[in-house]
Amino acid sequence: MKATAIAPANIAFIKYWGKKDEELRLPTNGSISMNLSNLLTTTTVEFSSRYKKDEILINNKIDEKENKRVENFLDKVRQMAKSNLRAKVVSENNFPKSGGLASSASGFAALTVAATASIGLNLSKEELSILARIGSGSACRSIPHGFVEWFEGNDSQSSFAQSIHPADYWNILDIIVIFQKGDKKITSTDGQKLVKTSLFFKERLNNIKNKIENIKELIKQKDFINFGELVEKEALELHAIMLTSDPPILYLQPKSIEIIQAVWQWRSEGLSVYFTIDAGPNIHLICQEKDQKQLVDKLQKIKGIKYIVNSPTVGTRLTKKYLF
Amino acid sequence: MKATAIAPANIAFIKYWGKKDEELRLPTNGSISMNLSNLLTTTTVEFSSRYKKDEILINNKIDEKENKRVENFLDKVRQMAKSNLRAKVVSENNFPKSGGLASSASGFAALTVAATASIGLNLSKEELSILARIGSGSACRSIPHGFVEWFEGNDSQSSFAQSIHPADYWNILDIIVIFQKGDKKITSTDGQKLVKTSLFFKERLNNIKNKIENIKELIKQKDFINFGELVEKEALELHAIMLTSDPPILYLQPKSIEIIQAVWQWRSEGLSVYFTIDAGPNIHLICQEKDQKQLVDKLQKIKGIKYIVNSPTVGTRLTKKYLF
Repeated sequence: MKATAIAPANIAFIKYWGKKDEELRLPTNGSISMNLSNLLTTTTVEFSSRYKKDEILINNKIDEKENKRVENFLDKVRQMAKSNLRAKVVSENNFPKSGGLASSASGFAALTVAATASIGLNLSKEELSILARIGSGSACRSIPHGFVEWFEGNDSQSSFAQSIHPADYWNILDIIVIFQKGDKKITSTDGQKLVKTSLFFKERLNNIKNKIENIKELIKQKDFINFGELVEKEALELHAIMLTSDPPILYLQPKSIEIIQAVWQWRSEGLSVYFTIDAGPNIHLICQEKDQKQLVDKLQKIKGIKYIVNSPTVGTRLTKKYLF
Repeated sequence: MKATAIAPANIAFIKYWGKKDEELRLPTNGSISMNLSNLLTTTTVEFSSRYKKDEILINNKIDEKENKRVENFLDKVRQMAKSNLRAKVVSENNFPKSGGLASSASGFAALTVAATASIGLNLSKEELSILARIGSGSACRSIPHGFVEWFEGNDSQSSFAQSIHPADYWNILDIIVIFQKGDKKITSTDGQKLVKTSLFFKERLNNIKNKIENIKELIKQKDFINFGELVEKEALELHAIMLTSDPPILYLQPKSIEIIQAVWQWRSEGLSVYFTIDAGPNIHLICQEKDQKQLVDKLQKIKGIKYIVNSPTVGTRLTKKYLF
């Protein structure tokens, strides 16, 4: 059986950075995110006796390291289905490969849904989220729809993501400002392993449950200004943790600083825009739909950048299923 | 009596950021620094009955806010000397005014030595350091020579700086890369008031005594590599504290990131150079004298920067004293 799934990437407002179990990808803390309408991965999986080994094509390329990670994931799926079938996997992003654009989140979410459908597993949303998490931590947040909470959990079964509001609950946007092509030097997986070397990490964890409660309340109330302030604070805290890791991690580029300063300048002029930054140089501008035009006008005057406008969107869905 | 003093600015390897007493400028923690041979302030002070009010000229300009701060300091000196004389003060830096070049450290150190000499106070090095501290915290470190420790202290009398090694103890350099003209947006005095809003500040303080002991040992052993690593870590920690202050402080400019990344690149190529960053955008490159030429060759290929080469130097000295 051949199955195709489409998955969105997601942007975290409260971030995932640090694992308490490397293999199971159990996070050191919960996180809160929104699915992104214009960062999508489409993946088709076919488990079949026709294949002698897994054939994996991601963005029309063969990358040994990436393919190995996908194979390991397929092993997990085979194990669950008690099957020995090999699979053909074809996966494509609708967005450019650029450091920190969360392609592994949308990638593993789509792979989870397509692969389990193809092999004939009938999993609940929770089970899909757990499985996606094992593929790539934040992929679990791309399974449910709209605004999402990932529960930290104590073990594999309790660490999954759930929708807290549907996509149409709040019309805020994530306009991603992109200026860096290609891979980032330090992958998120590698960077996170250093998190415990930061003198400040423990204090971050001590405070993060409060932060999650606060942001959930602000999203519920649609209190954009206090929400934006908290989102920005969280992003800077994350990058402070990275800077104080040993060795230090500096994902920010000169252009990142330029955009951050521009955001603060625009805000001082009355435009209600905030930023967040993932494990990469690109800056995510968070604004309300009503301010989109004004913000885009400003972005168009900055040289050397591109941008992708995202609204909140649904989670991962199966689009096709063929029987042979 | 007219007196002239020359004072060096200093670069801190372990930083001063946060006061436990605003008025007395008692720091929340001790710090370690080196005097800089090419950032000098020359100040002439004349207390005389000829002046009806204080006349203050800094870098050939009259700046009301700066002059007020100098007048308050002169009041302190008059109080100590039990005098009512007004003074003429002429002060000049040999370096451009640029965000974070520690002009208030060299400025108040020179003022302290010139003003007390002019008014006829005979103070010990310790007393001069204490008085300079009241003018501008880190100015106390510019009084003694060479490599310097500022003791945190419990009260005004116990918070002063002392030489730990003379200037010729270790031939390391501070090559300051300058690219920003004019004032920084947030002064160090204002920035420091926010330090307690950082979630991470307490943890920094918990750890800083260890850090000071470590760096003193590394300086003593002239262990450049471990010294450099620690200096860089401390600078990033300071900027992590600033980023997590509320509101956040971002002194780094796009060019700062470019230089930081260049330093890491050069080091990966075998050049032993480290950076530190004060409360400003400019980057201080710390290297050994033997690597100066190689480093300067690299700097000359970067557009839009200037640099100032500094070796360790003596403290503040009185150069002229005239009797009338």
